[in-house]
Amino acid sequence: MKYGIVAFPSKKLQDLANTYRKRYDSHYTKITPHITLKEAFDADEIEIQKISKEIASIANNFAPLKIHASRISSFFPTTNVIFFRIEPTDQLKNLHQELQSRINIGKPKHVFIPHITIAQDLTETEHDDIFGQLRMIGINEQETIDRIHLLYQLEDGSWTTYETYRLTGDE
Amino acid sequence: MKYGIVAFPSKKLQDLANTYRKRYDSHYTKITPHITLKEAFDADEIEIQKISKEIASIANNFAPLKIHASRISSFFPTTNVIFFRIEPTDQLKNLHQELQSRINIGKPKHVFIPHITIAQDLTETEHDDIFGQLRMIGINEQETIDRIHLLYQLEDGSWTTYETYRLTGDE
Repeated sequence: MKYGIVAFPSKKLQDLANTYRKRYDSHYTKITPHITLKEAFDADEIEIQKISKEIASIANNFAPLKIHASRISSFFPTTNVIFFRIEPTDQLKNLHQELQSRINIGKPKHVFIPHITIAQDLTETEHDDIFGQLRMIGINEQETIDRIHLLYQLEDGSWTTYETYRLTGDE
Repeated sequence: MKYGIVAFPSKKLQDLANTYRKRYDSHYTKITPHITLKEAFDADEIEIQKISKEIASIANNFAPLKIHASRISSFFPTTNVIFFRIEPTDQLKNLHQELQSRINIGKPKHVFIPHITIAQDLTETEHDDIFGQLRMIGINEQETIDRIHLLYQLEDGSWTTYETYRLTGDE
């Protein structure tokens, strides 16, 4: 089964992201807006119980995540993905690093650039048009996320929550 | 904010439900297949923390839910909803009753009939055609669900998980 670890921002920020996603994001209906903390990885039902305990232990060490969605950026030309850039704080980098090293399954495909995707699977022309518009609108939202989630993927590509972990530490 | 409490069945049963939902259920993209344990209710951010503690305390008393999806039924003529009927065990009825009485917000709109919706918002003709077909195919799946989830609804109607509660009791 395919699993992933994410942080969902506030309803306010999710609603804002969805105003763009419903038009521009091919994954709009598969998952609500999120920051990916660990990309999709495979595990069986035995492994995931051990992994879930690791995540719980990590969540016990980390304080609620202070995030700042500071501008609208794009991964172009690597991919035509447009996103809310989340400032890469030490806290976020450490959490990502900790999840990656303690759940030692799968190498990360990319360097960790925390973000909330708002557009993907666009043609190059669409990307340029939409990115031009959205970059002007911009974003500037700060908030605190006090929990992270382990999700699993169904056959149709949609994601269901397996477990929620409160961030209750000091880091 | 609007909240609801659900149990997600196994990936296998969700995948099966989705083979029907993608064609027949207008809510297909808003939430993955689920058994509703408490219908949508309103609460603010202070109230929900108290409610979440109540749910945690209830989840501590209940054992993992033994469910049996025994046949395909319909709420017609009340509504044109077709669903996997989940046998209404004492355990499910008690859990629903306990959630309803301890989170004393909103009267239930209907008698509690545990189910997984697979079709809704059909015309009467569509309903009759589809129900005729699906009833013949039927379903017979038994499994155990070891957790329940508190969800909240975004403005576009989709649902995000707020918290997960493991069922760790004896009832």
